[in-house]
Amino acid sequence: MTVNENVNENHEQSAVSVIGLGQLGTRLAQAFLGAGHTTTVWNRTAAKADALAAQGAAPAADPAAAVAASPLVVVCLPDYPAVEGLLGPVADRLRGRTLVNLTSGTPQDAARVAGWAAEHGVGYLDGAAMSGTRLVGRPEALFVFSGSEDAFAAHREELASLGNAVYLGGDPALAPVYDTALFGLVWGALAGFYHSVALVGTAGVDPTVFTAVAGEHMSFVTSLMTEHARQIEDGVFPDDDGTVEVHRAAMDHLQHTSGSRGIGTEVPDLFKSLLERAAADGHGTSGVASVVATIAKGERNV
Amino acid sequence: MTVNENVNENHEQSAVSVIGLGQLGTRLAQAFLGAGHTTTVWNRTAAKADALAAQGAAPAADPAAAVAASPLVVVCLPDYPAVEGLLGPVADRLRGRTLVNLTSGTPQDAARVAGWAAEHGVGYLDGAAMSGTRLVGRPEALFVFSGSEDAFAAHREELASLGNAVYLGGDPALAPVYDTALFGLVWGALAGFYHSVALVGTAGVDPTVFTAVAGEHMSFVTSLMTEHARQIEDGVFPDDDGTVEVHRAAMDHLQHTSGSRGIGTEVPDLFKSLLERAAADGHGTSGVASVVATIAKGERNV
Ligand SMILES: NC(=O)c1ccc[n+]([C@@H]2O[C@H](COP(=O)([O-])OP(=O)(O)OC[C@H]3O[C@@H](n4cnc5c(N)ncnc54)[C@H](OP(=O)(O)O)[C@@H]3O)[C@@H](O)[C@H]2O)c1
Ligand SMILES: NC(=O)c1ccc[n+]([C@@H]2O[C@H](COP(=O)([O-])OP(=O)(O)OC[C@H]3O[C@@H](n4cnc5c(N)ncnc54)[C@H](OP(=O)(O)O)[C@@H]3O)[C@@H](O)[C@H]2O)c1
Repeated sequence: MTVNENVNENHEQSAVSVIGLGQLGTRLAQAFLGAGHTTTVWNRTAAKADALAAQGAAPAADPAAAVAASPLVVVCLPDYPAVEGLLGPVADRLRGRTLVNLTSGTPQDAARVAGWAAEHGVGYLDGAAMSGTRLVGRPEALFVFSGSEDAFAAHREELASLGNAVYLGGDPALAPVYDTALFGLVWGALAGFYHSVALVGTAGVDPTVFTAVAGEHMSFVTSLMTEHARQIEDGVFPDDDGTVEVHRAAMDHLQHTSGSRGIGTEVPDLFKSLLERAAADGHGTSGVASVVATIAKGERNV
Repeated sequence: MTVNENVNENHEQSAVSVIGLGQLGTRLAQAFLGAGHTTTVWNRTAAKADALAAQGAAPAADPAAAVAASPLVVVCLPDYPAVEGLLGPVADRLRGRTLVNLTSGTPQDAARVAGWAAEHGVGYLDGAAMSGTRLVGRPEALFVFSGSEDAFAAHREELASLGNAVYLGGDPALAPVYDTALFGLVWGALAGFYHSVALVGTAGVDPTVFTAVAGEHMSFVTSLMTEHARQIEDGVFPDDDGTVEVHRAAMDHLQHTSGSRGIGTEVPDLFKSLLERAAADGHGTSGVASVVATIAKGERNV
């Protein structure tokens, strides 16, 4: 072992190390660099680390060196088994450091790796990048984290270079749960959006022209969500935003208009069937947020 | 005819008249009053007009007097036949004034009433109140209008008292088309939201706690819509936000997680089937916004 290697092992040389430089990992490293944090990088295929070196990152020779270089280690691989395979052999080097895992996985994955980290004295945060790669480093890119609150507090500033870094709580499984749920929320909006673009298209309205107006309507959607969350929590469903019956009738209109203009009706079909089931469950004259009870109890009871 | 009635007929006494004081019409009249516009009101059942009189409105004796009182006449009844039945007999009084119809209807309804208005020399705007009743009078309440651009320009200030007043274009059918499409957009987001609330509920996360984070994610949804609208318009679907295949795999995960936690899977089922159809249409490796083509061509081709 040369003196130089010894220094590498015992003296941290950078603020953060990023392991796994795929589409997302590369953007993470760039965001850390962009915010002025010294950044060590490692990737299985070295070319990706070299590209980042040209942008100011320090490439590490191997995963052990990457881990040893920083108090904060961020890993981003395709799945948890890849993370476990790569970091298992360097567990001792991780002791006393913080590991932030931005790989997508299940709540079970997160619990398992968090348990392994605890055994090895590693501060662990599970995380999820909610806003794709394009916005990474901008304040509107949402990143959720769960697990060690101390680790989050210690590295809040570095994590905030990635975007809007939100701590969800101590259970490491919360990040993957939110990840999955928020993906469903985004997809609901997208399905409604694609359907509405197809519908206005039948009247010759351009997608960008419609979307300029639709974008102005999204704050209303957010205000409905906030109001309805309160109703769901209280189990009280006033009819201020329309009853299940009123929405079912309006959905009938959307379905009929869509069909008569020759576009697919699968999106309104789903909404209408949800509303019909909610009415069958006895919520017809309740506020529309009562639909959540019908989803929560599952189809098996229908 | 007394002198007083004569004055009523020939000299306008208020800035705006509101005809039909149901849930929405009452809020419209209150918003005009709140913004300092003198407001005349009429309702079939007089008690609702009297309630508004206590708030500063001038009740009219009949629809003819209500029309004669203002250069701007706003009507809000359950449906277009009710509007035609009520205003048909007073068409001559409407001549030279602006009629704004905030009743919900179809593009055909709007075209028919616009034609009638043109025949009688009435400036016509069809409109839709997009944000329910609760927000009326606040800047985030979206109102869309279409039809006479001159009428919109002349009354822009009064209409802005209702909320965010957006002019869509000269074709009076645009307001009902946007109304229907925006309703679908809102419902997509709500279906995704209700599903995600049910899902995080299985992990013991309260609706309001989840929604605080979800609300911060809505600006990302809006930015996706803006980006995807451009892609749809150009017919070019880059994979920056994931391909149809990548989203289908993620949807598989949402569907499986939802099912294994005992909540309904109807929402992810729909999204997955849309993505599968898009893949079958040859869009598997295209960006996810290409799903719109599958919706637009309709189910008949599948
Ligand atoms: N891309 C996005 O928009 C996005 C958004 C949110 C979340 N995510 C999640 O982020 C994670 C990474 O996604 P990505 O898009 O960055 O993936 P990617 O572009 O496919 O990159 C995968 C990276 O992992 C490395 N890798 C794969 N298997 C490995 C192994 N066994 N040992 C060591 N390194 C290995 C690859 O190295 P080589 O270069 O040597 O192949 C590559 O650097 C995934 O869990 C994904 O779901 C991605
Ligand atoms: N409420 C909302 O959140 C909302 C949101 C967006 C759009 N809209 C649309 O706005 C319109 C009105 O809705 P709303 O909720 O205000 O309805 P509403 O509360 O049921 O009130 C209907 C009003 O129309 C009057 N009316 C009914 N039939 C009539 C007739 N033949 N001749 C004269 N007056 C008649 C009623 O008078 P009486 O008092 O004598 O019964 C009442 O003032 C509908 O097209 C609705 O779709 C409503």
